[in-house]
Amino acid sequence: MADQRADARRNYARVLSVAEEEVATHGAGASLEQIARIAGVGSATVRRHFPTRRALLEAVSHQRIAALCARAEELLGSDDSRTALLEWLGDVVAYCVTARGLAEAIAYDGDTHKNSCSAALEDAGGPLLDRAAQDGAVTAGVTVEDLITVAVGISQATAHYPDPAARADHLLQLTITGVSP
Amino acid sequence: MADQRADARRNYARVLSVAEEEVATHGAGASLEQIARIAGVGSATVRRHFPTRRALLEAVSHQRIAALCARAEELLGSDDSRTALLEWLGDVVAYCVTARGLAEAIAYDGDTHKNSCSAALEDAGGPLLDRAAQDGAVTAGVTVEDLITVAVGISQATAHYPDPAARADHLLQLTITGVSP
Repeated sequence: MADQRADARRNYARVLSVAEEEVATHGAGASLEQIARIAGVGSATVRRHFPTRRALLEAVSHQRIAALCARAEELLGSDDSRTALLEWLGDVVAYCVTARGLAEAIAYDGDTHKNSCSAALEDAGGPLLDRAAQDGAVTAGVTVEDLITVAVGISQATAHYPDPAARADHLLQLTITGVSP
Repeated sequence: MADQRADARRNYARVLSVAEEEVATHGAGASLEQIARIAGVGSATVRRHFPTRRALLEAVSHQRIAALCARAEELLGSDDSRTALLEWLGDVVAYCVTARGLAEAIAYDGDTHKNSCSAALEDAGGPLLDRAAQDGAVTAGVTVEDLITVAVGISQATAHYPDPAARADHLLQLTITGVSP
């Protein structure tokens, strides 16, 4: 039994590692059959570990989401609440632009319950937004879900530009300032 | 010869009409094989008419792009330059939310030359933006490409919400006002 569990863990780790590489190379649409082939397992095994594409993208994005959550906590210790919030938002956009599949893992997919990536990000960003709102530094009524959805949208719409990071940051700054405040 | 040309035109019209329905039902990822099957032609015929998915989406979106261009011209006749620009931008978002495949047809795809849909929209929106900028009603340096990219991003990021039109309009208003102006 212990051996079987160790086998299953190794098997999962192997599939996840291949999935990470395939999503990094081919983006959110990476082929599940190709992942199975490279990992040397059957398609059914991949589907057992990751029943949906979303589950695969969430698993692949886990470390980056954790880093963004840690960054939020760190920024909560800084003095300027507005700068802290906007810096974090810039990090969310920058991560989404560089890590293929991350924007898709965060994006709202119509499921009635929040997906684990967006829920974790909202929990992390909430206190940053609340603090900035208390200081009167953000437009009234803005939610952390609004901010993350805009960040995801900007990342996806700029993905094919020659310099997506610069283009995405430019549009984020425009969103912060406002088109016509 | 005249008969052959008439046949080719009928054939194109038939494939385009099926493509419009399939994209309306299945979105930008509609199957080219399925379109060929329903239209009763070979896949090679579909590919001859539409060498790329982008070409297909542009053809399907042609009428809506034309309507948005006509709307821009109409709004250019109104008195308030700021309201005219923002209303047009609202129309771009509303069209992208309701017409499946339109956002993807407009989105920058990394091609060195502009795609025909985004080029037409930029030509139409340019005068609206210029007029609002001359009246000091928009943030300095904003381009019509910025505005359209943000509109596309918002439309795509809200596509799976229960009420995408309301959610997209809310985020557009936030972008106009600014998160932290």
